[in-house]
Amino acid sequence: MTTGLLFTPEDALMLESILMNRRDVRGNRFTQEPVSDADLDRILRAAQYAPSVGFSQPWQFVVITDALVKNAVKESFTAVNNQAVTEFDQDKQAIYNQLKLEGITEAPVNIAVFYAPEKGLVLGQSSMQEAGLYSVVCAVQNMWLMARSLNLGMGWVSILNPEEVKTIVHAPSDYRLVAYLCIGHVDYFLPQPELELRNWNSRKPGESLIHHNTFSR
Amino acid sequence: MTTGLLFTPEDALMLESILMNRRDVRGNRFTQEPVSDADLDRILRAAQYAPSVGFSQPWQFVVITDALVKNAVKESFTAVNNQAVTEFDQDKQAIYNQLKLEGITEAPVNIAVFYAPEKGLVLGQSSMQEAGLYSVVCAVQNMWLMARSLNLGMGWVSILNPEEVKTIVHAPSDYRLVAYLCIGHVDYFLPQPELELRNWNSRKPGESLIHHNTFSR
Repeated sequence: MTTGLLFTPEDALMLESILMNRRDVRGNRFTQEPVSDADLDRILRAAQYAPSVGFSQPWQFVVITDALVKNAVKESFTAVNNQAVTEFDQDKQAIYNQLKLEGITEAPVNIAVFYAPEKGLVLGQSSMQEAGLYSVVCAVQNMWLMARSLNLGMGWVSILNPEEVKTIVHAPSDYRLVAYLCIGHVDYFLPQPELELRNWNSRKPGESLIHHNTFSR
Repeated sequence: MTTGLLFTPEDALMLESILMNRRDVRGNRFTQEPVSDADLDRILRAAQYAPSVGFSQPWQFVVITDALVKNAVKESFTAVNNQAVTEFDQDKQAIYNQLKLEGITEAPVNIAVFYAPEKGLVLGQSSMQEAGLYSVVCAVQNMWLMARSLNLGMGWVSILNPEEVKTIVHAPSDYRLVAYLCIGHVDYFLPQPELELRNWNSRKPGESLIHHNTFSR
């Protein structure tokens, strides 16, 4: 028999609903309603309860509300995005150009999330150095789910030059940008991912993703 | 006003409880009670609703129940762990040697989680190639939370040689092992992380992790 804090079947269903209704939110959905300090604190606290290799907690968060900082990051996005679109074929470019892919200036709050390597040895990290970065990603996913449960939208902007963002926020040189997040209230939560609704990609069937004991040769 | 599916303050509190009571579970806690197919399906479905860059869903899962496969992975763990412990100073080695750091053979189910790079271009991945790997990590965190809500324990084993695990499960050469997970029922969920309870590390204060607009120079 399991002891310790136990959850009910209803709790598991509620979690599933949060997981499945989480969306990547972009600037066309954010409203100007401010994010309360209480909500922001809960999102940052959720991050800090993520798993981390060797309990190293190798995460650093820069909460950005200053328009000058946001504008500088937006400039980096624009330059990188203008290059990225040219790499796709013409059909994809037509869809790409209709997509709003970030909400840097529209979202009231941005959070830049960094990996700060520990100075000493980390238990469990010797043979997989990337486990430290992965801990920070787990923190980001916790933030995303916490935000969604508070009916706040979050978007993850990966169309950026990480070194430029580091310069803009004066990050220490050994830190690594893991995620740049935009957070705010939204007018509407889409029922499905936007890239699925617009037929950019379709959802992969489980059979193509799940294997038993080994990959079949 | 926000439309679409909305959550209540009670739902947000429930999510927080799941986030904060999630534990890294090792072999000294797993029981032999089998994991039901229904629970396993829900954990794998939670993974597939994780965010992914460009909706690329670049994840592959190998569900391992075969003792021969588990034993081979356990051998890899043992070799890597015997080396890893020697890197710590004597005080830390004394604690390290008391820790049970995996549950590969004790957990009824193991899941090896891989990143499978897309053949074509992925929207949002040009300037941060690692976004594909990070999508897979988000899937792992969804699995962890789903398992916890079902009162199942999960542990992430990073003390492994990823190339050896790839060989054991016949993974395609371009796949990358992101996580090796052990899942099962447990006798007890610890109230805090074991490495915190044993004073391996302490929890970092929020003030040391959160910055405003930029890092202070």
